[in-house]
Formats: sequence, structure tokens, C-alpha cells
Amino acid sequence: MDEFTFIDTIKQNSYRQSSLIKGIGDDAAVFRQNTMDIVTAVDTFVEGIHFRKDTMSAFHIGYRALAANISDLAAMGSQPAFYLASIVIPRHWSSQEVQHIFQGMKEIATHYSMDLIGGDTVSGNELVLSITVMGYVAKEQVRYRGHAEIDDVVFVTGTLGDSQAGYHILTNKMEYKDAAYFIERHRMPTPRVAFAACIPGNIRVALNDVSDGIANEAAEIATASKVSIQLHDEAIPVHDSFSQFSKEDQQQWKYFGGEDFELIGTVAPKNWEILVALAKQLNLPLTQIGKVFFEANHNYVYIQKGNHQLERLLKQGYNHLK
Amino acid sequence: MDEFTFIDTIKQNSYRQSSLIKGIGDDAAVFRQNTMDIVTAVDTFVEGIHFRKDTMSAFHIGYRALAANISDLAAMGSQPAFYLASIVIPRHWSSQEVQHIFQGMKEIATHYSMDLIGGDTVSGNELVLSITVMGYVAKEQVRYRGHAEIDDVVFVTGTLGDSQAGYHILTNKMEYKDAAYFIERHRMPTPRVAFAACIPGNIRVALNDVSDGIANEAAEIATASKVSIQLHDEAIPVHDSFSQFSKEDQQQWKYFGGEDFELIGTVAPKNWEILVALAKQLNLPLTQIGKVFFEANHNYVYIQKGNHQLERLLKQGYNHLK
Repeated sequence: MDEFTFIDTIKQNSYRQSSLIKGIGDDAAVFRQNTMDIVTAVDTFVEGIHFRKDTMSAFHIGYRALAANISDLAAMGSQPAFYLASIVIPRHWSSQEVQHIFQGMKEIATHYSMDLIGGDTVSGNELVLSITVMGYVAKEQVRYRGHAEIDDVVFVTGTLGDSQAGYHILTNKMEYKDAAYFIERHRMPTPRVAFAACIPGNIRVALNDVSDGIANEAAEIATASKVSIQLHDEAIPVHDSFSQFSKEDQQQWKYFGGEDFELIGTVAPKNWEILVALAKQLNLPLTQIGKVFFEANHNYVYIQKGNHQLERLLKQGYNHLK
Repeated sequence: MDEFTFIDTIKQNSYRQSSLIKGIGDDAAVFRQNTMDIVTAVDTFVEGIHFRKDTMSAFHIGYRALAANISDLAAMGSQPAFYLASIVIPRHWSSQEVQHIFQGMKEIATHYSMDLIGGDTVSGNELVLSITVMGYVAKEQVRYRGHAEIDDVVFVTGTLGDSQAGYHILTNKMEYKDAAYFIERHRMPTPRVAFAACIPGNIRVALNDVSDGIANEAAEIATASKVSIQLHDEAIPVHDSFSQFSKEDQQQWKYFGGEDFELIGTVAPKNWEILVALAKQLNLPLTQIGKVFFEANHNYVYIQKGNHQLERLLKQGYNHLK
């Protein structure tokens, strides 16, 4: 199959977004947006670093890559609209496998009425998938990391550490309880678009998505908002079967595991119950895990375990250039 | 240097586009556009396929990659506004070299008042640079490939084959006339933004940029517009020193060379002089190279050489998946 035939196989027959004027087929795509602000981000995934063929099917690679990007849009409070997918294809990937990657992206794109409006397919030695997403958000309603204020409730959606648990199960040939659940959370995470986009515009929240683990994401909020954050170890929400893993793994995964694509955020105590009600409507677990406080001279994240003294939670995670 | 320090080194201190609300520093960038349409495209460049370290410095790799993307915006008649740059960095590239890539992009971005508003840096085995660009165009004034009509003048800006000639000089250790000119055209091409964006809105033109050689680009216009195109071999504009290369190379480069990032287009004969005057103001060569005509049953590109019969010009070029 040549490049042009391939593009025909992945091109959408019809588009869902009414703001789109021209999709794939010219030098560029064209859209119009008079009333909303436009939010955009790019994420790149490399074989052997972000995914492995033995733990992810081609379909899942595409699905999860776009999920990660949509999660960035969710963390800004925006509604996904478009994506452009650029792919470097090595010889050891069949064109069928590459089509499965695009089918995985299409699967999750459909949930959010997103249109594929551009891309590039080139050959190379390792598979690289680079996705640019665009979304819409009502004017002045973007949810920045820097919006946290003193005394805010710190919350997180869903449960943490699931994705890493899933990866652990996939790479260890042992019997685990709820294995299918954890594996699905690893392969097909759910970005929390509806929750973020439905928060009323007059309620201030700081938001960040959990791509690198909450230790890092909380630190980003603390730095951007010039506050400190205290988390309660017992409050961090985990799945009922999470306790089957070693204490060490649990600790590592829930704070540093990442890729759960849940949302961590802060909101004024007076508005906390509104978010609780909203999450309940969406059938989405929402948990208070700490609070925001002021500290002179620095913006740190601390963890409180039982009656022990506050312990500083240091950033840790995958740093690509180290 | 770690990833976060690196991002600090490439982040702009200030932004030029007044429509930008939030640049780099959160989950995504945010901008607002009430009056213009938004044009977007992505292009990906792989070491060893799109560029070689022995013919291009890191600076030139960045410069040319963004130039290629800007050329897509030019071909839509739009003004460049933003870019997002995603890079896969292998161990054999130093962080200084990677910074030079970003400096090359910054150099050409500055010419067009473009802002870098997002990106991703990840490690991998081969260098991959993926750039998404966004531009603005007045409503209903996008220049599509499908806008050509019967009897239109077919034109091209600048001279063709220069980029391939430059590459030839760089890879052959011989003396050539105007070597510096051809090498610069290969390394630092000039996308024709001003010409395309300045064409009055009430003048219909079809436009395509010459990334793959005019044989392919003319064929794209013919297919999209459901017309045929006849080109005159003697009219194809080349540089004064182009005749120093073999007849075979000249032929290959001017029709199939590509990467000149000139514009090929069509316009009604009555409006041709308006484009000529516009090009003159911009000090940009503009040449009539053929005309559009109707043929029942197909949409082909032909070439007329001297008094010979029309010869069909077949598509040819780099097809990445073959």
C-alpha cells in the first residue's frame, strides 16, 4: 500500500464538528471559531519508551496515545474537537498494524466527536506517533494550574495507580485479582473531559491531569499557584484490589505511577459540594485528598501519613533528557 | 540538561501574536480568533530520510522543517501565527545541537511573527522532528487546490530545481558556479507567504506549494479541480546557472525535485496582470508556465516541448510507504 492509498483508508468519510470548513485533502485543514477559545497541545510516543508491542496491541497504542492528548484538553476544561496524527513507520510494522493504530485513535475520537483533520506518514527505523489536539473552551473559562488558592480543597477523580498495576500484571506472569480491570485501565484510560467541562464557569478551579503521577502534578499546581499542598496518604483513592500488590509498589504507583489520566485539582471549600454533586451525576469517583496552604519561601507538596509529621513529597518521574 | 531545563531554554520570553492567551507552561496553549478562519497542518522530518547531518547543520534542519510547514500555510493564502514542535532525540545528538534546531526554527518563525506555543521532547533512536503550524486567513478566502477553471493561466513563483541543485553540490565534491546560492536555497528556502496572502480576496486562484516537484503539485490541482493542465517546458523558470548541470538532472530537478517551496497556481487570464504587478511589488519572479484546459474523462498534466506533441507528465516523487 502506498502513502496515498493509506491516507485514503484512514480519512474520515464525514466530519462531526460543524466548525470544520476543510478536513484532510489540501495543504492544510481549515476551521472557524467565533465564540470559543481554542486550546491546543501535542504529545509524542515512541516505541520501546512509551509503549511496547508485547503489552499493547496496535489498536491500544493508538487509543491510549490519543487518550493522553485528550486528557490535556480535559485538564484545561475544554471540549475536544480535532486531532492531527503524524506517524513514523518502520519496516517491521505491517500496514495492517498501522491501520489498527488509527482505528484505536478513531475509537476514542468517536466518543468525543473529534475529527481527524491532518497528518503525515513517513518511514523510519522506530515507530513514533505524534498527535496534536485542539479543543474549544468558553471564553475566560480555561482551567489553569495556577488557579489554586490558600485553603482550597485538593481533589482527584477516579482511582490512582491502576495503569501501573495493569502494566505490572502484563509483564509478570502471575495470577492477579481484577487483572482485566487493571489491564484495561492501562490500555484504554478514560480522560475526564465531561467532569472538567461541566464545572460551572463561575467556580474557580485549578486543574492538572495525572499523566506523570500526582506527586509531579500536585507540584506543578503548587509552583504555578505559588502555594504549598498537603496530601493525606490514607485519602488517596485506590481500587479495592490494589492491596494485593506489595506495599512498595502501591506507594510507588499511586504517587509516581502516572498515566491514569485522572484529574487533580483544587477548589474553594464553599464550592466543594457542588463538584461532589457533579461527579455523582457523572458516576465518577471524586475524592478530597488534601488541602492548599501557605508557606513562606517555597511551594512544596507534603504527605501526611497517620499521626506522623508532614513529609515532603519530592518530584520523581520519567525525565526524557536525563 | 534535563527536560524541564531544556524547555526553559527554548521557551519564548514574550509572544508576538495578540490572539494568544496562554503559551507554553500549562497542559495546553490557548488562543482566540473571532474574525479569521484557522488553518492548520503537520509535517514530520526523519534523520536520514528528510535530512542528513553531513549536508545540513542542526540550525538548517530546524529552519527548513519550519519553512516547509509555513509553505503549507502560504499555499492556503494564510498568515502564519503559531507552531508546536515535537522532537525525538537520540543519544548521538548533543543538547547543544538540539538547541540549534530550535534556534533555526526560531529564526524563520521571527520573520513571520510566529510563536512557539507547545511541544514535546522525548528520547528515541533516531531524530524525528514533527511540527504543527497554525495560521489565519480571512473568511471565505482560503486558496484551495480545487479552484482552477478552464482557460486559467498556470503560474509559478521563483525558480525551480534550486533545492535539488544545492543538495547535488553538497554531495558532490566539484566546483560549481553560484554554489552558495543553490546551497542556501536547499538549506534556507523562503515560503511565499506574502505573495499568497496579498492576493485580493475577490480574485479566485488555485494554489499549491512545490514541496514534491511541480509534476505532482500540478497533478494535485488538476485532480482537485477536475481539469487538465498543459505546461510549456521552455517556460519553466530556472536560475541563470542552472544550465551547468546535466540535461538529465535539470529535467529531473525542475519537474520532480521539490523542496523549492515555491507556489504553483492558476488564475483567470483577466486577473493575470494583477498578480504580475503584485509579484513585482514583492520583487518576486512570477512566470506563466502553462494553461488549464478541459479534457473529457481524465485530469492529466501534459508537457509541451518545442513543436513536439503534448507528452503526459506522470507523477513521480518520494512515496514514503512504498
